[in-house]
Amino acid sequence: MRATLMYGAGDVRVETVADPALHEPTDALVRVVAGCICGSDLWPYASKLATDHGSRMGHEFVGVVEEVGSSVSDVAVGDFVIAPFVVSDGVCDFCREGLQTSCRHGSNWGGAHGGDGGQGERVRVPFADGTLVVVPAGFDENLIPSLLSLSDVMSTGYHAARMGRVESGQTVAVIGDGAVGLSAVIAAKLLGATTIILLGRHTDRTDLGVEFGATHVVAERGEEGVARVLELTGGDGAHVVLEAVGLPAAVETAIAVVRDGGAISRVGVPQDPMISFGRNEFLRNLTLTGGVAPARAYIDELLPLVLDGTIEPGRVFDRTIGIDEVPAGYRAMADREALKVLVRM
Amino acid sequence: MRATLMYGAGDVRVETVADPALHEPTDALVRVVAGCICGSDLWPYASKLATDHGSRMGHEFVGVVEEVGSSVSDVAVGDFVIAPFVVSDGVCDFCREGLQTSCRHGSNWGGAHGGDGGQGERVRVPFADGTLVVVPAGFDENLIPSLLSLSDVMSTGYHAARMGRVESGQTVAVIGDGAVGLSAVIAAKLLGATTIILLGRHTDRTDLGVEFGATHVVAERGEEGVARVLELTGGDGAHVVLEAVGLPAAVETAIAVVRDGGAISRVGVPQDPMISFGRNEFLRNLTLTGGVAPARAYIDELLPLVLDGTIEPGRVFDRTIGIDEVPAGYRAMADREALKVLVRM
Repeated sequence: MRATLMYGAGDVRVETVADPALHEPTDALVRVVAGCICGSDLWPYASKLATDHGSRMGHEFVGVVEEVGSSVSDVAVGDFVIAPFVVSDGVCDFCREGLQTSCRHGSNWGGAHGGDGGQGERVRVPFADGTLVVVPAGFDENLIPSLLSLSDVMSTGYHAARMGRVESGQTVAVIGDGAVGLSAVIAAKLLGATTIILLGRHTDRTDLGVEFGATHVVAERGEEGVARVLELTGGDGAHVVLEAVGLPAAVETAIAVVRDGGAISRVGVPQDPMISFGRNEFLRNLTLTGGVAPARAYIDELLPLVLDGTIEPGRVFDRTIGIDEVPAGYRAMADREALKVLVRM
Repeated sequence: MRATLMYGAGDVRVETVADPALHEPTDALVRVVAGCICGSDLWPYASKLATDHGSRMGHEFVGVVEEVGSSVSDVAVGDFVIAPFVVSDGVCDFCREGLQTSCRHGSNWGGAHGGDGGQGERVRVPFADGTLVVVPAGFDENLIPSLLSLSDVMSTGYHAARMGRVESGQTVAVIGDGAVGLSAVIAAKLLGATTIILLGRHTDRTDLGVEFGATHVVAERGEEGVARVLELTGGDGAHVVLEAVGLPAAVETAIAVVRDGGAISRVGVPQDPMISFGRNEFLRNLTLTGGVAPARAYIDELLPLVLDGTIEPGRVFDRTIGIDEVPAGYRAMADREALKVLVRM
């Protein structure tokens, strides 16, 4: 089969690799129908040291089950499934609590773990019952991009809003107009936010954000951006800020535009361990929350909304390519020519 | 009247000052029955630069209303009242939401604001209706220390537990065996925590913590203390950590002993603006919350529990002095000879 490997910064190749096979009775084999390239794939694409052994790539995919191990009971051959971006056993205490990213037997896809990635034609799925979510048969094929978005970006945006405890009638600021930021706009609207301020400066993306529910767009950055958000919120700031960038400047902006007593919910992977969050933030009773999203916990809730058309998160995909075009897809995302690239197998 | 002024580090004096008078129609005059010295008073006591003009001290007191302005309606002459540690108007949006520490017309007592402090015989109370809580007549005088604790330490411990969203059946770690840490133990128990691990090394204080509900005491510090908490929690850490110290080492310990998906709720005033809260904490979905406590929001809830004897937070006071002994009281607290000093007028 064909699969994507990364050998170093800027060096992504599509190669023929061995087809996967079942290893454990809890495994399933899935033929990938659609995968995609993640914003987080761009970090190693920018900085990975060159190696002789490529790492298998991709952690978001949907597909059809081709084979299941003897102890798999919730997933059957022929099922169309969504794979969240981490593997989880589905039975440990963390999984039962909805924090599958801390699963006691969990792992990432591909990469260091030596498994298959979602940017390939087939994937061996560990803990198939715990990991996969079955989509009821008979859905419209046009929904595939939105179903795929539940693997990561839509669930991640939703996690931001849930961890920030967005409530009906609130004002929410979203920092970042990437696929996760735009998904966070959808999530804020779902949870009832009435004012949604999207901070971003790529007009094509913020236009989509407005279609998703953003009521205001702030293109200014830094102090000017902060001033604009405060102006839009009567000087007080937003009840909740959803931070979908991960750079220190974004966290600083978040602190500056959140209302006293409010929450900053981060889903951008922090690129700096240190954060300035001291006496002033304490006196303002600010909460810093968020983290890596347990997508598996949210798919059951979001799937019906995709199936009935309430939300269309798949619109964040603005380019569709085949498996052999994946290296060009990385380049397009790195050069910001594409917002998010879907790989149709 | 007699009142306490601080002129610089280690320089606390009790002097005769002018009696307060009503300034605004929303003011009340209160004759202080009991005030106290706060752990936070020890920061300026250790570091304040010497000045010619002393600052009036004290932000926790209970007393009897002697006079009210023409527009005061909820507080009457003769009422016994509890004063939270900040002034709040009671009518702005923040006050209505229970975040009186961010009141749009709020202020601190005494100090830079030039008002009276609680370590004096009388106090002019701005926004009396918003600020003060009336205690129903007929209570036992022995309850005065517990009523006084609602001004600050008990409400602060409760704020920690509420912001950390302690739930029934959870494991809670409390860092710090000062008056606030011990109050946080009471609060964790009130909210239903079944395992309460108190980190502290002053046996007389941790003994009281056990009487308040701590199920385990960890006297070890640093890595040894962390190892002990992890051992007590099956390697996972506590669902919620209540941090009642404010030093960077305490926050580091908190991060090390909290369970994935859990919360660190700070009520120790942060002594360093920078904290290490990056990718690892993100991957663990940790929440950092807490802040300065809106005591006013909690007194209505806690007062009945003091009056019926359910909680006895006043036991944190281990020394009672008169107004002229206040300088000695500061020394006793700074030297850790006393946990918390009550000033009976």
